[in-house]
Amino acid sequence: MKQISTKPAILSRGEFEAIFRSVSNWGRWGAEDERGTLNYITPQHIRDAAALVRSGQSVTLSQPLNMVAGPDNPRPSVHHMVKMYDLPLSPRGEPQFVGDFLGTEIHGDSRTHVDALCHVAYKGQIYNGQPTSIVTSQGAIRQDITAYVNGIVGRGVLLDLPRLYGVKWLEPGHAVTTDELERAEKAQGVQLREGDIFLFRTGHHRRRLELGPWDNSYEGQGQAGLHPSTMRLLHERSVAAFFPDGDGETVPSNVEGVAYPIHAIQIAAMGMACADSLQFEDLLNVCAQQGRWEFMVVACPLFIPRGTGSPFNPVAIL
Amino acid sequence: MKQISTKPAILSRGEFEAIFRSVSNWGRWGAEDERGTLNYITPQHIRDAAALVRSGQSVTLSQPLNMVAGPDNPRPSVHHMVKMYDLPLSPRGEPQFVGDFLGTEIHGDSRTHVDALCHVAYKGQIYNGQPTSIVTSQGAIRQDITAYVNGIVGRGVLLDLPRLYGVKWLEPGHAVTTDELERAEKAQGVQLREGDIFLFRTGHHRRRLELGPWDNSYEGQGQAGLHPSTMRLLHERSVAAFFPDGDGETVPSNVEGVAYPIHAIQIAAMGMACADSLQFEDLLNVCAQQGRWEFMVVACPLFIPRGTGSPFNPVAIL
Amino acid sequence: MKQISTKPAILSRGEFEAIFRSVSNWGRWGAEDERGTLNYITPQHIRDAAALVRSGQSVTLSQPLNMVAGPDNPRPSVHHMVKMYDLPLSPRGEPQFVGDFLGTEIHGDSRTHVDALCHVAYKGQIYNGQPTSIVTSQGAIRQDITAYVNGIVGRGVLLDLPRLYGVKWLEPGHAVTTDELERAEKAQGVQLREGDIFLFRTGHHRRRLELGPWDNSYEGQGQAGLHPSTMRLLHERSVAAFFPDGDGETVPSNVEGVAYPIHAIQIAAMGMACADSLQFEDLLNVCAQQGRWEFMVVACPLFIPRGTGSPFNPVAIL
Amino acid sequence: MKQISTKPAILSRGEFEAIFRSVSNWGRWGAEDERGTLNYITPQHIRDAAALVRSGQSVTLSQPLNMVAGPDNPRPSVHHMVKMYDLPLSPRGEPQFVGDFLGTEIHGDSRTHVDALCHVAYKGQIYNGQPTSIVTSQGAIRQDITAYVNGIVGRGVLLDLPRLYGVKWLEPGHAVTTDELERAEKAQGVQLREGDIFLFRTGHHRRRLELGPWDNSYEGQGQAGLHPSTMRLLHERSVAAFFPDGDGETVPSNVEGVAYPIHAIQIAAMGMACADSLQFEDLLNVCAQQGRWEFMVVACPLFIPRGTGSPFNPVAIL
Repeated sequence: MKQISTKPAILSRGEFEAIFRSVSNWGRWGAEDERGTLNYITPQHIRDAAALVRSGQSVTLSQPLNMVAGPDNPRPSVHHMVKMYDLPLSPRGEPQFVGDFLGTEIHGDSRTHVDALCHVAYKGQIYNGQPTSIVTSQGAIRQDITAYVNGIVGRGVLLDLPRLYGVKWLEPGHAVTTDELERAEKAQGVQLREGDIFLFRTGHHRRRLELGPWDNSYEGQGQAGLHPSTMRLLHERSVAAFFPDGDGETVPSNVEGVAYPIHAIQIAAMGMACADSLQFEDLLNVCAQQGRWEFMVVACPLFIPRGTGSPFNPVAIL
Repeated sequence: MKQISTKPAILSRGEFEAIFRSVSNWGRWGAEDERGTLNYITPQHIRDAAALVRSGQSVTLSQPLNMVAGPDNPRPSVHHMVKMYDLPLSPRGEPQFVGDFLGTEIHGDSRTHVDALCHVAYKGQIYNGQPTSIVTSQGAIRQDITAYVNGIVGRGVLLDLPRLYGVKWLEPGHAVTTDELERAEKAQGVQLREGDIFLFRTGHHRRRLELGPWDNSYEGQGQAGLHPSTMRLLHERSVAAFFPDGDGETVPSNVEGVAYPIHAIQIAAMGMACADSLQFEDLLNVCAQQGRWEFMVVACPLFIPRGTGSPFNPVAIL
Repeated sequence: MKQISTKPAILSRGEFEAIFRSVSNWGRWGAEDERGTLNYITPQHIRDAAALVRSGQSVTLSQPLNMVAGPDNPRPSVHHMVKMYDLPLSPRGEPQFVGDFLGTEIHGDSRTHVDALCHVAYKGQIYNGQPTSIVTSQGAIRQDITAYVNGIVGRGVLLDLPRLYGVKWLEPGHAVTTDELERAEKAQGVQLREGDIFLFRTGHHRRRLELGPWDNSYEGQGQAGLHPSTMRLLHERSVAAFFPDGDGETVPSNVEGVAYPIHAIQIAAMGMACADSLQFEDLLNVCAQQGRWEFMVVACPLFIPRGTGSPFNPVAIL
Repeated sequence: MKQISTKPAILSRGEFEAIFRSVSNWGRWGAEDERGTLNYITPQHIRDAAALVRSGQSVTLSQPLNMVAGPDNPRPSVHHMVKMYDLPLSPRGEPQFVGDFLGTEIHGDSRTHVDALCHVAYKGQIYNGQPTSIVTSQGAIRQDITAYVNGIVGRGVLLDLPRLYGVKWLEPGHAVTTDELERAEKAQGVQLREGDIFLFRTGHHRRRLELGPWDNSYEGQGQAGLHPSTMRLLHERSVAAFFPDGDGETVPSNVEGVAYPIHAIQIAAMGMACADSLQFEDLLNVCAQQGRWEFMVVACPLFIPRGTGSPFNPVAIL
């Protein structure tokens, strides 16, 4: 594969916090707000998104539930059969039924999910200045995933960074800059704007499919993601939601003393609806065929009261 | 509440099987087909559904995940916190994260979910004549929920039976007939047609909210649902999916020796995408305000390989 | 059944706290102690217990794991098969294996288990004056169940209160007093002494078997148990462990403003190894046959690091 | 470490089946028997075992529950807090309680557990000639773990093979022969006899502690264990139970076309109570100090109706 040289600027904690403050949406939609940047999405945006449905196709953006332990999945999901076709017929007669059980942690790499705003705290504060005490052993009493229960519905825009460079994926450590995002926009002829659901592709999932899962943490090989300076762009453009194929973070990070700066800013400062570990391999083909990178997205977390997130299966409808 | 007299015909097993055969779609879309009546939904149907998005609103059709044991929920779902804000800061620094675990049976009353076609067998046969041996202790090796992974997307039509009678809900045992469905269509000015997602409201969920959960099985009070003769109507109209607020079954059933005849016919004979335990309370208000009973529906099961169904959160977009 | 009149004294909070202080073992075995009253059991006690093995019989004191939701079991345990004999033979050849999964809350009525000392706090303090912060979202970092990992082994003494009155069980609300315990000792010809494992039978489990499970909480019918004044006796006698058929608590309690005073004193003040929800129905027969109420007991919690207790299966060996 | 040369004989399938038949206990204790070799343990054996309690010490033989995925633990156990000290005080007042949840597969390497007789089938047959259909999706309807619910109690004898060679552990692939067992007996001055619980130490757990977990399957490095020919010795000696530190199997096996021959013979042919993944590191020290290799063992599986085994915590009492 081509070598891309990238020397991302390392930010001091002060520089990081300056970004944090400058893009913060605390108080913007009221002290009680729990929807954060989803407030950008107006009914008009939803109508416009629906108008993008032209070919009548829908495409999953989810990975299959990962039930195999590995370097990026230390606590795998479980799927158990609870009833099979081996039982005697009910005295009531036919039919027969089977059933199963699903057990899964909600967060975690290689598990397609969406975060609630309570999921992240920076310096002891959650989005909108809420204290960490809103998360109890009985779940989150505010800022839980039910804030998104009517779905995340809007225009999706896919920026495919590997395409910009003609590579299959960005290598671990690559921190995508504002300049690169804007070049990707230009190359693809599309632009992020108010209320958009931003699908950010580093090729994380493609790399995983081809090379196998890897330890993408600080202890391992790391991963490609965004540079914290891009947060200003997302803020200016009033992006509503962020759907990456990894989790958006560059590992190791580009901020001294801050390990996952993208989550801190997106979720705790901006109140952005952020997902994790999507896959765009199917969508990519459809987009290429149709020569367009915008479409309707519908993404519905499960209705989990007090949940800090949810597994989900977002779809692009084109 | 008003008393509605209903004396549904009791069918013999022979009559039931005549219906089963007459509406069967086995072989219709090929011996390998796993999508059943979703085959009715063409790209044009999806475009038409998107064109119904006029007010730019989306509304959940899901109940909250039910974590309280009760007469219709003997094995409640569990939600556990796995990480809280009480841990020492990582040596890498901020931010902090919390996470949780979800454990749930997929099927079961009072749990919003969708069935895979492998979920039901009649006389040892699954949709398309598949044997019950396709369901193993490792899950379903065919006809699993991944057949729907790109989502169930189309025009939703809500028929609200209590509205027809001016009541809050149909009482347990009420078996809705073809005549009643057609009268509801007429009263609401809407008609089920090819590729539709049929939202069927008996008021089951409303009754549950007002009177509390009840034992809706044969051992208990039973429930309102469809009469098996309505299957012919759904077949003629080429309905693609069935989304009821209960599970569509009348209990006790109207067939001698067949306990859950609706599941048998819809899933095993027709290969219909069937959901369970939705709620239409929010949607009802929006429909009433807008004076229409059709809308776009997007319903995406989780991507559970070998799953016999999935919890999900369908939305209506209007 | 016979009527037993019992008018247990109601204690003020002050009287309760006087008992709490007078039986407290905080500091007795050092500031770091995590074994509490198990310290009473010396090697000599274990030898003496082994010497009680005369007939060579062992008897379980455990109820079967309760997988049925009910008024005293709102979150039932689950048992799932994970592998069955329906899979193709391994390419390596025979044999074939099956396996299963167990999911269970550790505490809870009608679930035989033992509590770790971290399980209870009174006024924000755990046994030995430990703060509640030793219990984190990652489990207990001190006073966890691993303190008992070498087993609770010693002389068991069964006091059978229903026998004293010639009844099948004590009715809910009955608070057993010191006088009643001493009368039971006399009637059975046995006496609690240093290092003993005290098996306390109210007939809770027998009542459950005959009448079915009931709501034994404050919202329901309550249950028979100990009166808090008996704590002085257990302290004087240097009892090492407490194994009741209910959980030892009288509901409603006999202390104003303290809901579960027995747990508070036994566990938080005395540091006593306390179990819950045992059954003595099999043991009772053997004891009656042999005309003795003392025997060896071996009770081994699972080795659960950071656990606040454990399901277990104690046995009496006679 | 010393090199031990061992060239274990490879058996043909015919030779293996000859052993299988010659040690089979099918029918020996009746067609309905579910206790297998535990029938060897008489009350006298239990009395004799209790008489071995001389120093009044009890020692766990369990590993800590393994919650970390690894090459020998692909589906780790989970331990979740379900209630913590962060909740508001009950209106009833003090005390406060915490609780947790345990989820675990029962079988699996590096997880201390005991197998029920239903766990293994050879050529479609379970111990005593039972068909595999006794294991259903609702668990085992015969030969389940409740057969052992009164505990496995008897004389334990530890044979420490590494001690024989002056090494820390036997290397993977080492198949211990009858000759080696007898030499170990002689060297340790102890002999397996009727009704014994045989603790078999290869040093598996010690190796794991020092080198870390490894893939002990056919795909990986394998492991040390017994040679199938030793089954005749265990049969002649009327051994009641088998408690190894690995699982007793040599990997790769010493039988053509049979992958886990020890399980096949011990469990399916002999009906032996077999455990898995114990640790003897603590016991070893006590035995060395006391200069004896026999002691009382008490091992109590949880009371899991229909379970194919159970996690447990066996103890040696000396």
